Amino acid sequence: MSIALIIPDRKLDAVVTALQQQLPDVTIEVWPEISQPDAVEFAVVWKQPAGAVASLPNLKALQSFGAGVDSILSDLTLPASLPLARIVDPHLTASMLEYLDTVLNYYRLRFDEFGTNQQQQLWKPRSPRKIRHLTVLGLGELGSAAARHFAGLGYAVSGWSGRLHQIDGVQCFAGDHQFAEAVAEADLLICLLPLTGATENLLNEARLAQLKTGAILVNVARGAIVDDEALLCALQTGKLAAACLDVFRVEPLPVEHPFWTTPGILLTPHISAVTNADTAVAQIAENYRRVQAGLPLLNQVDRTRGY
Amino acid sequence: MSIALIIPDRKLDAVVTALQQQLPDVTIEVWPEISQPDAVEFAVVWKQPAGAVASLPNLKALQSFGAGVDSILSDLTLPASLPLARIVDPHLTASMLEYLDTVLNYYRLRFDEFGTNQQQQLWKPRSPRKIRHLTVLGLGELGSAAARHFAGLGYAVSGWSGRLHQIDGVQCFAGDHQFAEAVAEADLLICLLPLTGATENLLNEARLAQLKTGAILVNVARGAIVDDEALLCALQTGKLAAACLDVFRVEPLPVEHPFWTTPGILLTPHISAVTNADTAVAQIAENYRRVQAGLPLLNQVDRTRGY
Ligand SMILES: NC(=O)c1ccc[n+]([C@@H]2O[C@H](COP(=O)([O-])OP(=O)(O)OC[C@H]3O[C@@H](n4cnc5c(N)ncnc54)[C@H](OP(=O)(O)O)[C@@H]3O)[C@@H](O)[C@H]2O)c1
Ligand SMILES: NC(=O)c1ccc[n+]([C@@H]2O[C@H](COP(=O)([O-])OP(=O)(O)OC[C@H]3O[C@@H](n4cnc5c(N)ncnc54)[C@H](OP(=O)(O)O)[C@@H]3O)[C@@H](O)[C@H]2O)c1
Repeated sequence: MSIALIIPDRKLDAVVTALQQQLPDVTIEVWPEISQPDAVEFAVVWKQPAGAVASLPNLKALQSFGAGVDSILSDLTLPASLPLARIVDPHLTASMLEYLDTVLNYYRLRFDEFGTNQQQQLWKPRSPRKIRHLTVLGLGELGSAAARHFAGLGYAVSGWSGRLHQIDGVQCFAGDHQFAEAVAEADLLICLLPLTGATENLLNEARLAQLKTGAILVNVARGAIVDDEALLCALQTGKLAAACLDVFRVEPLPVEHPFWTTPGILLTPHISAVTNADTAVAQIAENYRRVQAGLPLLNQVDRTRGY
Repeated sequence: MSIALIIPDRKLDAVVTALQQQLPDVTIEVWPEISQPDAVEFAVVWKQPAGAVASLPNLKALQSFGAGVDSILSDLTLPASLPLARIVDPHLTASMLEYLDTVLNYYRLRFDEFGTNQQQQLWKPRSPRKIRHLTVLGLGELGSAAARHFAGLGYAVSGWSGRLHQIDGVQCFAGDHQFAEAVAEADLLICLLPLTGATENLLNEARLAQLKTGAILVNVARGAIVDDEALLCALQTGKLAAACLDVFRVEPLPVEHPFWTTPGILLTPHISAVTNADTAVAQIAENYRRVQAGLPLLNQVDRTRGY
């Protein structure tokens, strides 16, 4: 009975030590040095190479090392019946809200505009941007927390999801047919959707056209949810006043990508919310114990939906 | 009996209308067209030209149109015995706190660093800057509100003023001899002092040397409190990691000034907190009535101290 960590390009010593403390009787193996593939019953995965999971014949469950699972499900060799859980971390939610607060105020106080003016030695005092209405795409763990948070601060907030939600103080919409209505009033649009077959390139030319002219897009979910070309075009035409991007189709963002240099883009290197290792270790251990006890996983993902 | 507005370079129609509504029986004169100088008993002033106040022989009191009075007291022709009041505005305090929150989070989340990296197409994720200790210089209306606010958010906060204050959760220091102690732990130093003879160039080379290496300076008070050369030097040597400047010795900041282009400077054009015209009008009317009734002015300034 052992746990495999299949998490390339990351120092895992601290995670192994912490897991070992929580589960002293369990062997922790770190990919690619799995000495006994047959003994692995539980794997913790993040951006695993195709085939790595499939090479473990006795796996009972998979645990994502993060909140998202798109990088795990993109592995076409993944056994279809394996249950998959993800991390749900209140610290991660809190840091996402801090990031969003900062970005909102950055735009409200026109730090983008004053930054551009500074480069041109231009002194142009202006009163704050009127950002009154926010729309949050995705009302899951992160999206519903964001919607609630900003509604609590007095913003007019609408939210959009697959199934219809009810959130106090938030005008909720659901499904493709209500997208236009959900985003119609947005001064700032926050994307907190998971990346799935259904959301890939969701923010394309047609959907961006449904925004108010001069809206601001904040993508803190996954890069591939936004059509790169459509975004560049929307910035160029002024449909979008600005875009804050923390996530990209390819990360690190390639040096030659126009996002680096397009005016109106504020770019951060996928730092808006990072999984806390302590929370992750606790949830990994808990889900491992649940698998052993035949209990359902915590925070299990719907593999059909893909999130 | 009339009120004179001596506020150059500003559209005053709305202020005149609002004042007239509050004081229907009073004549409002707008400098430089003062038809009856002898009748003016109360003047509202902001950056008035030297001599304009002195030309009104029957003035009983002066009212600053803003929170600061340095631009008023710098007029050497100002009659020494005239009482002077300033605006104290809770909206102004609230917008100052929003500005400071935004700046703090901007640095905490390394938006400065990521901005520089973006210009160089550099992808360098980093966890937030550790900003734990804030020092607030000046513990008046704005400084004490800022100190209290950040202490409430869980930051370690020290404050410095002329006389010793007591503020819950804030370590207070007073006087020149305690300056070094007050700023010793600061990761971020917020200047909210008034500009007076005693504070001009207060943040000079010697005092900046007393900061921790890598501290960040935020000047939202008056530009001349900071020695320009000393600041440039502190940024160059790395003594200061960054400086956010909303105020300048000369405003608009001259095109050739090195602050525009020095790396590490975030520059905003004196927008951190603007006096709300409605609050100002109400306080002007109230102080006018008080003068007529022989009552002491609200928010009177100590002309000896200069603030
Ligand atoms: N930038 C970062 O550092 C960072 C950190 C953590 C997470 N993330 C990203 O944020 C995403 C969201 O996280 P979460 O924990 O909030 O996810 P979640 O709890 O799974 O919620 C997903 C939400 O998106 C909605 N949704 C999914 N597909 C949809 C579709 N086709 N149309 C409309 N709505 C759809 C869901 O609708 P229902 O409510 O109807 O199911 C749900 O409300 C993650 O998947 C991850 O990619 C980014
Ligand atoms: N950027 C903007 O948009 C903006 C907007 C509004 C105001 N301001 C500036 O902010 C300044 C502060 O405003 P405020 O309303 O908080 O002023 P305030 O109520 O008069 O308070 C001034 C504080 O500074 C302290 N102080 C004065 N001289 C000192 C010295 N030589 N050494 C140590 N401490 C000294 C005072 O000490 P005591 O407590 O001992 O008197 C007091 O705590 C204004 O003067 C104005 O210049 C800027």
